[in-house]
Amino acid sequence: MTQLYSNERFDRLIPQQLDIIQSTGAFTFSIDALLLGNFARIRPKKRQLIVDFCSGNGVLPLLLSDKTEAPIHGIELQEEVADMARRSVQHNHLDDQITIHTANIQTANKLFAKDAVDVITCNPPYFKLYEESRLNPNDKKALARHEIAMTLEDIFIQAKYLLRGKGKLYLVHRPERLSELIVAGKSRQLILKRLQFIYPKPGEPAKTVLLEFMKNGQDKGLIVLPPFYTQTVDDNYSEEARHIIYGQE
Amino acid sequence: MTQLYSNERFDRLIPQQLDIIQSTGAFTFSIDALLLGNFARIRPKKRQLIVDFCSGNGVLPLLLSDKTEAPIHGIELQEEVADMARRSVQHNHLDDQITIHTANIQTANKLFAKDAVDVITCNPPYFKLYEESRLNPNDKKALARHEIAMTLEDIFIQAKYLLRGKGKLYLVHRPERLSELIVAGKSRQLILKRLQFIYPKPGEPAKTVLLEFMKNGQDKGLIVLPPFYTQTVDDNYSEEARHIIYGQE
Repeated sequence: MTQLYSNERFDRLIPQQLDIIQSTGAFTFSIDALLLGNFARIRPKKRQLIVDFCSGNGVLPLLLSDKTEAPIHGIELQEEVADMARRSVQHNHLDDQITIHTANIQTANKLFAKDAVDVITCNPPYFKLYEESRLNPNDKKALARHEIAMTLEDIFIQAKYLLRGKGKLYLVHRPERLSELIVAGKSRQLILKRLQFIYPKPGEPAKTVLLEFMKNGQDKGLIVLPPFYTQTVDDNYSEEARHIIYGQE
Repeated sequence: MTQLYSNERFDRLIPQQLDIIQSTGAFTFSIDALLLGNFARIRPKKRQLIVDFCSGNGVLPLLLSDKTEAPIHGIELQEEVADMARRSVQHNHLDDQITIHTANIQTANKLFAKDAVDVITCNPPYFKLYEESRLNPNDKKALARHEIAMTLEDIFIQAKYLLRGKGKLYLVHRPERLSELIVAGKSRQLILKRLQFIYPKPGEPAKTVLLEFMKNGQDKGLIVLPPFYTQTVDDNYSEEARHIIYGQE
């Protein structure tokens, strides 16, 4: 039986029929992870290499394992959180497919060969660390939310090194940082190819953005997908949100 | 009475109650001009300077004159088209407010002082000129559609020179060129602050994007406005499109 520590519980990834260990004290995934897992175009074939940066409790590797037979590697800095992810992988009998590394993504180039990775996914900390932001660097939630242990630049530096030509980087982030994301990507030959904005509900500004970058891609033909609404005007999950949370119904 | 040449006709800008001369042979404005005129935030006060680049038959100056008492200058390269714009201005008795210059926007810095302009609007040619694009450079429609006489860079070079600090540049363009727009703006200290995607109808990718840049703005707090649909699923104008075409009804 899979070991659960205090504050931990099993939650169900319903469409994928997988269980995931979550801890209210350390880390619970948000709908953003589900949106990214849904957005990433992953081929089912086995001979490719997929890496998830800032893997947290392993939600992305678990979601992606439903789309492909390829090996998936998650990289998570916090040992306690990586351990949760490893126990979830084991619990779902996915040890053969998913490997969780305890590491800072800044050292991802030590784990994989140059130009060897087909797809990278990343649901990173969203917020810049300003001098005025007083945060406890030992706080697990702060590490997941703020760029304490890594920055947005690190994602692109590592993606440029690891991805093969035409390899894809999938990111979920805040629209406020769109310019920065595009400029940082372009300076590493990672070209934005697909974009989707997530709106909390009709009539409100976008709260989240999903991005697909291609290494050495040509800078033409960016596609901005139809908007995705997570909620309806009366505060229920939208039909498209229910689809990624609960699957076909 | 205002002179009309062959192929020319008057069309009505209904919400503004203005008439505009259009020529099927040379230039007719599209809904993109109406979208940009609607998107641009223009204060009503008189003491400011507004410049419209790539002014065509003067549709933007005419639209903006309904929002403000400030002087508005249009810059249009093609003398025949600029002449149409001038006749429309005269016909609507707006000579005191609107001036149309026949010039390439590359020389806009000769028409106005440095840091003197409050707002620039521009509905530019959308398409890059590739070597393989064989176009007749004397074709008035080609000049309006393709970057023959100017490029996207020219817009930002001139906007950087002309705009005062915190001055705004409003652009309408194609989503395919979003990255290029953001990078070109940033390299001239023009920071993207507001973005709105225009979708032809629900479920389809965006076809147009409206952008607000601020000179010397801080690169945080980009707002992505709710999507704008020009049509309904059954191919009629949407309510929001009807609003900018026909006004309050």
